[in-house]
Amino acid sequence: MSEVHAGRRSRLRAHASPNGDVAAVVSRPSNVRYLVGPAPAGAVLLVGHAGGDALFGHWDPAEDPVGPRLTDDEGPRVTVLDGDADPAQAAVRAAAEAGARAVAVEEHHLTVARHRALREAVPGTGFTDLGCAVERQRLVKDEDEIAALRVAAEITDRALGELLESILVGRTERHLALELERRLVDHGADGPAFPTSVATGSHSGLAGHRPTDRRVEEGDFLTVRLGARFRGYRCQIGRTFVIGTSPADWQIELYDVVFAAQRAAREALAPGAEYREVDRAAREVLSAAGHGTALGPVTGHGVGLEIGEDPRLSPAAMGRLGPCVPVTVEPGVHLPGRGGVRIDDTLVVRSSADGGPELLTITTKELLAL
Amino acid sequence: MSEVHAGRRSRLRAHASPNGDVAAVVSRPSNVRYLVGPAPAGAVLLVGHAGGDALFGHWDPAEDPVGPRLTDDEGPRVTVLDGDADPAQAAVRAAAEAGARAVAVEEHHLTVARHRALREAVPGTGFTDLGCAVERQRLVKDEDEIAALRVAAEITDRALGELLESILVGRTERHLALELERRLVDHGADGPAFPTSVATGSHSGLAGHRPTDRRVEEGDFLTVRLGARFRGYRCQIGRTFVIGTSPADWQIELYDVVFAAQRAAREALAPGAEYREVDRAAREVLSAAGHGTALGPVTGHGVGLEIGEDPRLSPAAMGRLGPCVPVTVEPGVHLPGRGGVRIDDTLVVRSSADGGPELLTITTKELLAL
Repeated sequence: MSEVHAGRRSRLRAHASPNGDVAAVVSRPSNVRYLVGPAPAGAVLLVGHAGGDALFGHWDPAEDPVGPRLTDDEGPRVTVLDGDADPAQAAVRAAAEAGARAVAVEEHHLTVARHRALREAVPGTGFTDLGCAVERQRLVKDEDEIAALRVAAEITDRALGELLESILVGRTERHLALELERRLVDHGADGPAFPTSVATGSHSGLAGHRPTDRRVEEGDFLTVRLGARFRGYRCQIGRTFVIGTSPADWQIELYDVVFAAQRAAREALAPGAEYREVDRAAREVLSAAGHGTALGPVTGHGVGLEIGEDPRLSPAAMGRLGPCVPVTVEPGVHLPGRGGVRIDDTLVVRSSADGGPELLTITTKELLAL
Repeated sequence: MSEVHAGRRSRLRAHASPNGDVAAVVSRPSNVRYLVGPAPAGAVLLVGHAGGDALFGHWDPAEDPVGPRLTDDEGPRVTVLDGDADPAQAAVRAAAEAGARAVAVEEHHLTVARHRALREAVPGTGFTDLGCAVERQRLVKDEDEIAALRVAAEITDRALGELLESILVGRTERHLALELERRLVDHGADGPAFPTSVATGSHSGLAGHRPTDRRVEEGDFLTVRLGARFRGYRCQIGRTFVIGTSPADWQIELYDVVFAAQRAAREALAPGAEYREVDRAAREVLSAAGHGTALGPVTGHGVGLEIGEDPRLSPAAMGRLGPCVPVTVEPGVHLPGRGGVRIDDTLVVRSSADGGPELLTITTKELLAL
């Protein structure tokens, strides 16, 4: 992986310093991870204007006797700081000493107070804004990243599949959520990609429902949303089931509508498609069925080292999908007091020559009666 | 509780605006929670220069059909925003419209980019730095807060006690950690206060160990660190046990040293004691036993709505403890390759007239052989 990381840093260097005299100081944790791999919490990366990349951070031997892991020859030099020293100040100082004309920092991550302390600590240095340059680099994934997402999705499907084989009636949302998280870890996840949501009965179909002590009952809709984190990469699946016997007519109708909306959005995923086109595809199906106002602000979003990355698939989003961009497609409808349906998948945008969108989360989307 | 919150906001108003003409805009989530109670994620609070407190945020009906919960008469007015609007901009605009001469913002929380957008969005407004005024208010806890911490500690003791009654040999660190978190929730926690750490054998005694697939074996030291979150308040306990048969001599010796260090620090907790005195009390015991370098940068820290609050009990910390400040005392020693011991408690500083430090986490600190 270190060659991959070195390549990413070279691209960032070329962007930040077209004339070869501006160093970049990266502080946002997911961006640091993207550019160097796993790093100590709070570590800050200097991408030097002429090479000499270096990582600055704190290392507590009581916490991690192995120490910073970036000690291979190809990785950046690691500097361990004492006490409360801000690693960003150490990085800026190193850039200044190496002769950088200016230092580009992440103004969307550094706080006002930290930025001011930085300017005061290293006076005479010019500061510019790196902006979201690293986030833009992260938008399109390479095959290593997609492979990690694929494993995350396999783990997620397996954890969900096992739950479906167990007895659900009478168990609480909290317990089901904890069991799913345990199964994710059992199957090799680093941990959950986001807090697992289990929503039954009148809670079903809510996007961000936090599990309660409500128990699963016969006749309920049951919505589960979970995802594994594997090598830092996060995927997402959401499914809605009906509990016991046969579903009621309103349940079948609502499920069919959400399923149709989700399929329409999935089918709209293609290189060159506008973000808002994908969103519109789902919204139109729901609107035609009288559920136009039930959908939240987004139909889906990018995933990667964070669970909510660019792009956002929403009515006002500007931009077009590219190949190798992984996104979720996750419409849902909740009917207050009754419940609802959500169906979430993680897919990778691919051209039709490459077989069209690659579905990572393959658990069936038939309406299962459990 | 709303009277309590109103009182806190009044104190902040008096601090931020001694002349009655500066509004405060609070964006840091734990500070917002302290001043209004549970609020939607990302909500921003305006503490008006002349009253008229108001909360600004986004509300997704698909996520929470009930809507913002702050609708009682005593709470601040809640304004729900559309789209991507920054709630901080709405709060600053409202302050300007209400005639505030200046607006004090949390420069240690707002990013440079967000602060710039704020100044551009509401031109003509004067901005000042609120600094850590709310964090300072949060340092000393009232009896409601301490009551919540007490319940969190009871839940934590109960979860740990149940684990100790079960068979541990052969189970993995990951499974034990997940089981502890499930038990916390079973007993009424909102969730874990921080990621539960279970460390066995050569991992034992590490402060921030993340659970692995290593299984508990006969003769191991087993270190567990966990805590419940209850009504937002977080406590912490850490204990080290020895597995099976009788402990080895080195285990008994190491345990006794860490126990003595922990006791020394606990006994140093008193109103008026310097932060670094408490730290020194533990460090001196460990140094005398030849483990002076094994201790991490802090011996303990404040707890409350966050797990790591002020004060820090460290060699360089400046300040003195006051009554009703809850802190952890958590020294530890890890011997690379062999393992180690950590013992963490949460206590509330009390004067000797009030009975001295109040121990919240009461699980025994005898060396148990399980």
